[in-house]
Amino acid sequence: MQKLKAEIERRLVRHLAEHPFWRHLAEETPAAFAAVQETLTAPGKRLRPRLFCQACRAGGCEPFPSFAPVVLALELAHSFILIHDDIIDRSAVRRGVPTLPEQMNRLFAKKPADGFRGSDFALVTGDLIYTLAIESLLQAEASDAQKTGMIRLFTRAALDTGRGALLEMRAAQTPLDELTVENIETIYALKTGSYTFALPLQLAAVCSGNRRKPDPLFPDPGTSAGIAFQLKNDLQDLRQWVDDGPLPDDIRDGRRTWALVYAGSREALGEPETLAAVEKAKEEHTRYALDITADAGLKELLRLALS
Amino acid sequence: MQKLKAEIERRLVRHLAEHPFWRHLAEETPAAFAAVQETLTAPGKRLRPRLFCQACRAGGCEPFPSFAPVVLALELAHSFILIHDDIIDRSAVRRGVPTLPEQMNRLFAKKPADGFRGSDFALVTGDLIYTLAIESLLQAEASDAQKTGMIRLFTRAALDTGRGALLEMRAAQTPLDELTVENIETIYALKTGSYTFALPLQLAAVCSGNRRKPDPLFPDPGTSAGIAFQLKNDLQDLRQWVDDGPLPDDIRDGRRTWALVYAGSREALGEPETLAAVEKAKEEHTRYALDITADAGLKELLRLALS
Repeated sequence: MQKLKAEIERRLVRHLAEHPFWRHLAEETPAAFAAVQETLTAPGKRLRPRLFCQACRAGGCEPFPSFAPVVLALELAHSFILIHDDIIDRSAVRRGVPTLPEQMNRLFAKKPADGFRGSDFALVTGDLIYTLAIESLLQAEASDAQKTGMIRLFTRAALDTGRGALLEMRAAQTPLDELTVENIETIYALKTGSYTFALPLQLAAVCSGNRRKPDPLFPDPGTSAGIAFQLKNDLQDLRQWVDDGPLPDDIRDGRRTWALVYAGSREALGEPETLAAVEKAKEEHTRYALDITADAGLKELLRLALS
Repeated sequence: MQKLKAEIERRLVRHLAEHPFWRHLAEETPAAFAAVQETLTAPGKRLRPRLFCQACRAGGCEPFPSFAPVVLALELAHSFILIHDDIIDRSAVRRGVPTLPEQMNRLFAKKPADGFRGSDFALVTGDLIYTLAIESLLQAEASDAQKTGMIRLFTRAALDTGRGALLEMRAAQTPLDELTVENIETIYALKTGSYTFALPLQLAAVCSGNRRKPDPLFPDPGTSAGIAFQLKNDLQDLRQWVDDGPLPDDIRDGRRTWALVYAGSREALGEPETLAAVEKAKEEHTRYALDITADAGLKELLRLALS
């Protein structure tokens, strides 16, 4: 598994070194290029490309080298989403390094009179990384029909992700007692599940020529995995907080997490009943998520991601 | 020509009424949908889709109905670029109506404590419209090879546009005497020329099966047209200002326009020599731009756009 992660990261480094767009940026605005390089190569689990590779192998197809551009596209798309998320959330740190908007604020917003913020540079850079992700899908050694199929899946996941982000922002402006945990599960499934879990598995199905219809019992492999994945994060934050850690950022920023909506108030958030309910929901969704595949390697990777 | 514009606008209205994504948004966040609807249907020249249609016809192919999704994609992509531009520029009005970030600021940023600005909603909405543009290309009645060809052209233009936007922001932070008019022409060609002029003509070549190699004398049909198009805008602003109108927004905001770099200072900007130089450069680039085509209809449309 470490070997696969290293291979994914090698592809990222090579992309940054070789793509004409990055060469232009490195020449025209070296400081911006260095910031992007640090952001894209910051330590990460590379979960989405790893799921894709594992699912390819489960479908009897070797992802490297033919589908290396798909691996790259998934990681670039994830970075794009994180960058725009960090602008919206005004996050300063991610994966242990300053976020791209934060780095660009330090680099470029030295002169308030010029009217541009670092986040403006980060916004455009995010758009560019999104474009590079789509362009990368076109580089796969695949038929044109496979490529259009992959791009169709990709746009569908991007629509889910953006719709989830809009719903999440609206929920933050909605009184707690008007929201249900089902509302929050929809947001988790759309914003995280679709591109993190459903998309890699669906792309692998296209690459391995596996056109099997979705199992009617589990029509969308991303829903439960996405919900479980977010509940896992919520639970980690909550447990730290109960152990006298800091108030989770999401709660501080008014985010409507599953736990907060279940608890009904910030005061009830740390109660044992709330934690038990989050734990139970997480286990239930993890069980559904693991049932989507009979492949041992994929099951193991999903289990690791969700626990 | 009015008929073509009406047809393009009908397609936009139908897209907003029928696409599942917009139906979700209309149901989940009706106020956001109304704002998007107003932004996308605000009066506009629809220059990019009109260039595409005219170039299709020049190539012997009828754009409707087979390539209506390409028409739509061009207008959606343009809207995406305007929305992200309006966030960066903090523009409040565009095409006579409040910009999307401005409308969303009024709608959603009523509670400062919730941490989200209207521009955050607009940022995500822009990303979604970009995705819908790519998805629309996939709906054309064309072969998979044509579709991948169109998406490749589309991503290339998007990379140019973003690179131009980054260069423009950097130029605004660069002392005037370190910039040349050639630097500014590069920005105009990348940021505006590529997606406004080159892309529609290149897409039409794919749709009409015209694989003719680019003329070596005019390798990039967008460069001169893009420069001339921006110079026309600069000239309009300057003439208004000289006639005791307001200081052009671009100059007020520290933008490095061709005229400002040529003049060398804000004081020299209104001098007759500056206006004459802008006029001369605009005429020269317009001449090059009109030479890219022998088709009378296309030439006429370019002439209208550039004068």
